[in-house]
Amino acid sequence: MSDVSGKPCILCVAITGSVPTKADNPAVPITVTEQVESTQEAFELGAAICHAHVRNDDGTPSSDPDRFAALKEGLEKHCPGMIIQFSTGGRSGAGQARGGMLPLRPDMASLSVGSNNFPTRVYENPPDLVAWLSDEMRKYAVTPEIEAFDLSHILQAIRMHEAGLLHGRLYVQFVMGVKNAMPADREVFDFYVRMMRTRAPEAAWCAAGIGPNQVVVNEWAIAAGGHTRA
Amino acid sequence: MSDVSGKPCILCVAITGSVPTKADNPAVPITVTEQVESTQEAFELGAAICHAHVRNDDGTPSSDPDRFAALKEGLEKHCPGMIIQFSTGGRSGAGQARGGMLPLRPDMASLSVGSNNFPTRVYENPPDLVAWLSDEMRKYAVTPEIEAFDLSHILQAIRMHEAGLLHGRLYVQFVMGVKNAMPADREVFDFYVRMMRTRAPEAAWCAAGIGPNQVVVNEWAIAAGGHTRA
Ligand SMILES: [Zn+2]
Ligand SMILES: [Zn+2]
Ligand SMILES: [Zn+2]
Ligand SMILES: [Zn+2]
Repeated sequence: MSDVSGKPCILCVAITGSVPTKADNPAVPITVTEQVESTQEAFELGAAICHAHVRNDDGTPSSDPDRFAALKEGLEKHCPGMIIQFSTGGRSGAGQARGGMLPLRPDMASLSVGSNNFPTRVYENPPDLVAWLSDEMRKYAVTPEIEAFDLSHILQAIRMHEAGLLHGRLYVQFVMGVKNAMPADREVFDFYVRMMRTRAPEAAWCAAGIGPNQVVVNEWAIAAGGHTRA
Repeated sequence: MSDVSGKPCILCVAITGSVPTKADNPAVPITVTEQVESTQEAFELGAAICHAHVRNDDGTPSSDPDRFAALKEGLEKHCPGMIIQFSTGGRSGAGQARGGMLPLRPDMASLSVGSNNFPTRVYENPPDLVAWLSDEMRKYAVTPEIEAFDLSHILQAIRMHEAGLLHGRLYVQFVMGVKNAMPADREVFDFYVRMMRTRAPEAAWCAAGIGPNQVVVNEWAIAAGGHTRA
């Protein structure tokens, strides 16, 4: 898959997420076997990155390293060469438990570098936890994907990268359309892209629109030369 | 005082703040009498708005409505016509205690509409608290000054204003230069101003630079037609 400018476009597939359960949608893959199966389908269709959460048996979010290990093993077997990205997001655990799977050395892990509101609560990423997670990622050679829910998160990521605090190439995902955080706004999206191009021209970026905004944000990202999460 | 474009420039004086104590700087006004005296000086020099916190006797931050009432009485007597703005910021109290002084009906009160990181912690403004504070401000006819620590806060303020959730004229303060939140960045400042001008042309806005950024952000704001906090 390549974007309109001819640069390779990396398609990123988010399996499961942390919120939906079988009760919401019976097609949501919950078990590791189901997750591997559904990722394999996406991989065969061209997805290059698998952004993964894991679940407990009852479908609730988990950050259990054993479950992440089983998922990693399955993905390595069935999707050889696919980039595995584990979520360290706050929905699946609290404090340092969010990074308990990093010693498994996935290729990438998500990293939030600031806090913001979510629909009904504060998404808390205190500075000391951000520092601990980025230290762990450096220790285990895990490249972070920065989850930017607001403009200052992008600037913070660029500063952290310049200070040598982030392993690997800088990689930022713009997250748009979460209620009480940044909406899916075209003018803001364009400003985000401009910040990345002028201040971190070597970096990669992608964009994710939440819920009904998914398709439109994907289109913006592909047209602007970023990659998207499907 | 007027700015370069000839529009009146409202000078906003922040007395005390919530953090410095006498140990940091013996000149910091702490008691209500000291606060009224120092505000009167600024008022006579042209300050039009007084942004006020109150303190306990030991200098620690407080949200005690009785202290706010004494301050309001002193300001009304010594600075007649000055706009009184009380802080509902999170440094001085937790949860609904932050809005306990709103029944005193100050002209204005600060209001945060999102969360973000501060130098060492999360500045928590959960959605239900934001809704409660803005409801109280409508009930007591208090005009909020939105404290925007990030871009999404500006867009959230505009949405809340359009939905009729904010009393009075929309009034947004850009806060820049807080570590781990938005830096004092000229390109971001210009984008903020553009958002306000194009999406809320009837609104007022001002800008505050924290610490060493105070003077430069004041200069940007005056030149761009906003007002500043000294
Ligand atoms: Zn991605
Ligand atoms: Zn995720
Ligand atoms: Zn002001
Ligand atoms: Zn204040």
